[in-house]
Amino acid sequence: MMSTLESLQKSFESYFNHRHFPAVPATLYNPLEEFISNSGKRIRPILCLMGNELFDEIHSDAYHLAAAVELFHNFTLVHDDIMDKAPLRRGKPTVHAVHGEATALLGGDVMMVVAYDYLNKIENTHLKKVIQIFNKTAKEVCEGQQLDMDFEKLDKVKLEEYIHMIQLKTSVLLAASLQLGSIIGGASEHNQGHLYEFGRNLGIAFQIQDDYLDAFGDPSKFGKQVGGDIQSNKKTFLLIHALETAAGQDLADLQSLLKTSSSDKVEKVLSIYKRSGIDEWANQLKEAYLEKAYHHLDEIAVSSNRKESLRALAQYLIIRDK
Amino acid sequence: MMSTLESLQKSFESYFNHRHFPAVPATLYNPLEEFISNSGKRIRPILCLMGNELFDEIHSDAYHLAAAVELFHNFTLVHDDIMDKAPLRRGKPTVHAVHGEATALLGGDVMMVVAYDYLNKIENTHLKKVIQIFNKTAKEVCEGQQLDMDFEKLDKVKLEEYIHMIQLKTSVLLAASLQLGSIIGGASEHNQGHLYEFGRNLGIAFQIQDDYLDAFGDPSKFGKQVGGDIQSNKKTFLLIHALETAAGQDLADLQSLLKTSSSDKVEKVLSIYKRSGIDEWANQLKEAYLEKAYHHLDEIAVSSNRKESLRALAQYLIIRDK
Repeated sequence: MMSTLESLQKSFESYFNHRHFPAVPATLYNPLEEFISNSGKRIRPILCLMGNELFDEIHSDAYHLAAAVELFHNFTLVHDDIMDKAPLRRGKPTVHAVHGEATALLGGDVMMVVAYDYLNKIENTHLKKVIQIFNKTAKEVCEGQQLDMDFEKLDKVKLEEYIHMIQLKTSVLLAASLQLGSIIGGASEHNQGHLYEFGRNLGIAFQIQDDYLDAFGDPSKFGKQVGGDIQSNKKTFLLIHALETAAGQDLADLQSLLKTSSSDKVEKVLSIYKRSGIDEWANQLKEAYLEKAYHHLDEIAVSSNRKESLRALAQYLIIRDK
Repeated sequence: MMSTLESLQKSFESYFNHRHFPAVPATLYNPLEEFISNSGKRIRPILCLMGNELFDEIHSDAYHLAAAVELFHNFTLVHDDIMDKAPLRRGKPTVHAVHGEATALLGGDVMMVVAYDYLNKIENTHLKKVIQIFNKTAKEVCEGQQLDMDFEKLDKVKLEEYIHMIQLKTSVLLAASLQLGSIIGGASEHNQGHLYEFGRNLGIAFQIQDDYLDAFGDPSKFGKQVGGDIQSNKKTFLLIHALETAAGQDLADLQSLLKTSSSDKVEKVLSIYKRSGIDEWANQLKEAYLEKAYHHLDEIAVSSNRKESLRALAQYLIIRDK
């Protein structure tokens, strides 16, 4: 009997819900305890546990790896928030906003070290391989963040460059979480590879959806202000494709709208997006990545019923119109 | 035949002097290559190699660990410089001063990941133990930096608190570098413990000397401005002890000098230090820690001639008056 999403969330929380850091210095460690207890969806640890259970019963080592990827993810959030000068995260003031940049910086550092403490808890057999994948992924996530900052300074970014960046910044950690769990489950290299590709493509589909919802989402369901990306000229799937494909007056209008912050900017950009078919294009692109993800899931050589929880997770993450 | 300090420095450089980071994104990785090639004294990697050679011929794994501790040390410098808003490091502009805080922050992060890449190169036998010591040390170094920042905000810090902080911030990495090397050399727990204590006490002696030289050093030999710590009211061994022991008018003068930045501040503080015997006290304290260090070196159960290079290193690091 495979675990449900809810049961995995619950069992991860009961494993993870304890103090992770020493008591002193409290000025360093207490802000971190507070930050990680303000949970988020715990998607990455769940992926890690599902990656294990796809191949075998969940081993305690998968929980250690799940904690490591969750701490690593939280470390990236704390540091990204400093770099982006973000005031809020998950609806609360960011660590640096409350405790100062120095403590947030140092706290992120020590959170990464504690992530490696969790990696180091697993049995020796898989340790070297696990650290190798974890490190490769960690470097890629940093590279993605650097590219994102570099792109902010450019006038024009190509769609393929954007996809490359967003994949490093967000998808590879989802993919690696699945793969790390699968290693504990004894997966072959072949199966690890397909599972990784499932996660990577699912991550890109999710990011396209995220960009789409920011423009076209129902504010009551989406839970954040719609049009925020448009207001701030954020380079998204939508804007990059619109600049590549809009023609004539629409392109000229879009370019001049990027220089304004008028009250009707969001409305006007949205109408250009719609006239240029950007909404439909984004849905199709999301669907294409989702199809790729499912293709790789199909290729994994385990019985179809073992894949149910990963399909359920994909359905939970990605809304399909059709 | 044991290696000399010079031969170890040379062989570490020939191992270490290559590109450590990927080519792209160059905006992230090139500043790091440049920073670590601007070498410093490479004390920590040398300690690591000496720790190995104390017990056995140097194994290639000791070079991997030496690279890991050197990268970790450089990571702390890059991040500390952000926190301290330092404009210069080793006579050159700091990473954040040239490339911006965001890149310095992210670059430090990725440098730490690459340190773990080097740890992960060693044979499986010692991997878990090595990561455990490395992580414990990394956390302590972060704790030391946090305490240092906390102390900056306090009016009064006790000598024992300062020693605790400075030991975490600087000595434990020296001690751990020795221990990590000794593990590769097959040292017993007993010998590892004494070697660690040798490094820890040597590190404290070195820090006392550093504080001493900033006040009483010969500017032509010391290579940096004498009195900088006094000018900036930095809490050092000297100032903390002076505030604990100076009496009457001297104490009152010292406290009012801390509130000024007059041109004769350094001169006046120095004369209080001398009248209160702070210079002599600091030399004796340094000597006491050095004696402790040598005691632990004596306790290590290997033939005395194997300890020559560590004695030579201690003599190279610590100037003795007598």
